[in-house]
Amino acid sequence: MSALSEDLPKPRAERLQADIEALTRMTRPDVPYTRRAFSDEDRAARAWVAGEMRAAGLLVTVDAAANVIGRLPGGQDGPSIMTGSHLDTVQAGGRFDGIAGVLAALEVTRCLHEAGHRLARPLEVVNFTCEEPSDFGLSTIGSRAMSGRIGADTVAALRDSRGRTLGDAIDTVGGRAARLEEARREPGSIARYLELHIEQSASLDRAGLPVGVVTAIAAPSRFRLTVRGRQDHAGGTPMAVRKDALVPAAELVLLVERLAREAGRGMVGTVGALTVHPNMVNIVPGEVELLADFRGINPAAIAETLARFEAGVAEVARGRRVTVDVEPIVREEPLHIDAEMIQHAAAAAESVRVPFARLTSGASHDANHIARLCPIGMLFVACRDGRSHCPEEWADPAHLAAGTRVLLELILRLDVALAEPPPTP
Amino acid sequence: MSALSEDLPKPRAERLQADIEALTRMTRPDVPYTRRAFSDEDRAARAWVAGEMRAAGLLVTVDAAANVIGRLPGGQDGPSIMTGSHLDTVQAGGRFDGIAGVLAALEVTRCLHEAGHRLARPLEVVNFTCEEPSDFGLSTIGSRAMSGRIGADTVAALRDSRGRTLGDAIDTVGGRAARLEEARREPGSIARYLELHIEQSASLDRAGLPVGVVTAIAAPSRFRLTVRGRQDHAGGTPMAVRKDALVPAAELVLLVERLAREAGRGMVGTVGALTVHPNMVNIVPGEVELLADFRGINPAAIAETLARFEAGVAEVARGRRVTVDVEPIVREEPLHIDAEMIQHAAAAAESVRVPFARLTSGASHDANHIARLCPIGMLFVACRDGRSHCPEEWADPAHLAAGTRVLLELILRLDVALAEPPPTP
Repeated sequence: MSALSEDLPKPRAERLQADIEALTRMTRPDVPYTRRAFSDEDRAARAWVAGEMRAAGLLVTVDAAANVIGRLPGGQDGPSIMTGSHLDTVQAGGRFDGIAGVLAALEVTRCLHEAGHRLARPLEVVNFTCEEPSDFGLSTIGSRAMSGRIGADTVAALRDSRGRTLGDAIDTVGGRAARLEEARREPGSIARYLELHIEQSASLDRAGLPVGVVTAIAAPSRFRLTVRGRQDHAGGTPMAVRKDALVPAAELVLLVERLAREAGRGMVGTVGALTVHPNMVNIVPGEVELLADFRGINPAAIAETLARFEAGVAEVARGRRVTVDVEPIVREEPLHIDAEMIQHAAAAAESVRVPFARLTSGASHDANHIARLCPIGMLFVACRDGRSHCPEEWADPAHLAAGTRVLLELILRLDVALAEPPPTP
Repeated sequence: MSALSEDLPKPRAERLQADIEALTRMTRPDVPYTRRAFSDEDRAARAWVAGEMRAAGLLVTVDAAANVIGRLPGGQDGPSIMTGSHLDTVQAGGRFDGIAGVLAALEVTRCLHEAGHRLARPLEVVNFTCEEPSDFGLSTIGSRAMSGRIGADTVAALRDSRGRTLGDAIDTVGGRAARLEEARREPGSIARYLELHIEQSASLDRAGLPVGVVTAIAAPSRFRLTVRGRQDHAGGTPMAVRKDALVPAAELVLLVERLAREAGRGMVGTVGALTVHPNMVNIVPGEVELLADFRGINPAAIAETLARFEAGVAEVARGRRVTVDVEPIVREEPLHIDAEMIQHAAAAAESVRVPFARLTSGASHDANHIARLCPIGMLFVACRDGRSHCPEEWADPAHLAAGTRVLLELILRLDVALAEPPPTP
């Protein structure tokens, strides 16, 4: 089958690069490429993307969760094809994570708009609210709200370190947190969700391939561990009588790392955050909080690792005579993408002659939540040296354009496939 | 010899307790018993102590380092006897560390004042500026300035996390940082320095003794360690290619603890502060900063431990393929107190019938710096369960009064001894 997008304008690398540069200007002056959700920078990026959506002929709305949604009407009404990602970043983050997916979606609509091409069904482009971990202890907030996994009660209860509620934060960027349920979509109201994202790992970069078709997304399991020892003077307290909370916390950091290594099968384990109280040079730490994150694709490897982790934490607490509270904060299942969606994506890449590989995703995405509403597809773009969540994060604009070409073709193909009557048995 | 203080009013536990309570009110409303140097609470306590000094007949001055000094003239002029400590606390600190020594000094002068007793030589009562570790990376600031170990250049260069210089901070509490050298005292200008302090360890409490006579003070050696790995996405980065800075940092925490335990001979080792960058659940930490503190009395044990530490740090860096920068920030020598001063203190305690033990101090104090100017003496008061630098820190007011009784007697004895001509050889 030849490419359905053959007669349309091609997604343009230089336009994507200009968009990247425009958004780079909407980051903090003091911390490279930082646009935390609900910040002034986030507000600026939201206004910018809404303007670009309008320029591409989209009708822009902001839902109750502050997701910015641009809609291109189809020849007929009915369930839409949705594509997008997020514009918020981690602290000292990168210029592509999430951003690539929103810009690719925008570029697709520009190509359709320029050609005056009308799809059979509506196309929705989305910038999800706060995909990255926030000070409220929650990530993927916009896609959780859209898939009905959080409501007004939750966002009214969660507070950041300054005491502000998540609901108030959502309202400051155009949401209506008190009516968060209005952001929910019914299963079936979206026909398919597609997300383009940088790989955040080095397999495409090492293989010299611009694009990847994702077959599965690893599931994160996250825990908040609170180690409670006894705060004491660091000079006057003999080693034998101490209950230093940081010493067992250090053992827990090493435990997480060792268990992930030993599990193999693609498991990863990270303590990304660790906070010491009171954190002064001459005080034996009384309390330490850690956030541990395990991810995997293989259900057996995940189950074994989490069981060994539970046992290991108990052993550390016993050995060091401290208490360790373990609060599970996230427990997702790995997401295996429908074979049909993988096939459509691979066919799209082949027909526009973009070299690709099938691969899995270690990171989870907004797509994980939207998968509760409809089949999803994910495309990866090569990420230099696999570096992500850091200022060095980089994707070649030519690769980004190649990924966007696949995304455009995939949308056209799905639009046709969805219009066809199901095969008679 | 009977007590020289026999005919003077006795130091009173209830007055000391009222003082403790007065100072407790000058702490932060949100963090228990916190009066950080240069804070509003510190300013309030300084004003309070100056008022109490004046009420006890002292002439109050504030030197260039913002040390608050009350002077009681003697029958003749010449080198003074100085006694005091500090009123600043650590974060979430206690009500006695430092405070006990200032209040005991104040109570001694009240007893002298009530009786109209005049010493042969001047008595100085001092509240030293910022004894505890500060955000400027420096502790014992007032006693360092008095002993000539820091000058105007240093305090103009050091900045806290908000960019304020230490010099500016000193000026806000009444100092004149640009002329810090004026706070210097010449060796010999102070005849003896005495400091009463809570023990901050449990040996007196366990032995049921109210008071200790200190024979030596442990030396702290402090290092700032910066572990530089590589910041990466926690989901997308396989374990084998990571350079997680927190994993080697955890090994360093365990190294410090193990070396101190293995050294024995009273060595202690602590990582009290550890800061992770960027400290987010889904990011492999790129950089971790640790503050490590070793202390000991035994010079061989100190030297061995520091050598093993240096080798251990290098081994961790090699093993984990990260760089670890080691910046020595403090390197003190243990202080062995003059036998004559120990004897005077023991004789004073005996003559006022206060049970006591000879012991060493794990913590260092303002006395360590003033020891460069003159012989020093230290008295300890029992500290419940040895808990210090925490809200539970507690000393029995009766024990505090007993220690103050010893301090008063010791001052009277030194005043006499210093007036006597040196024995002819």
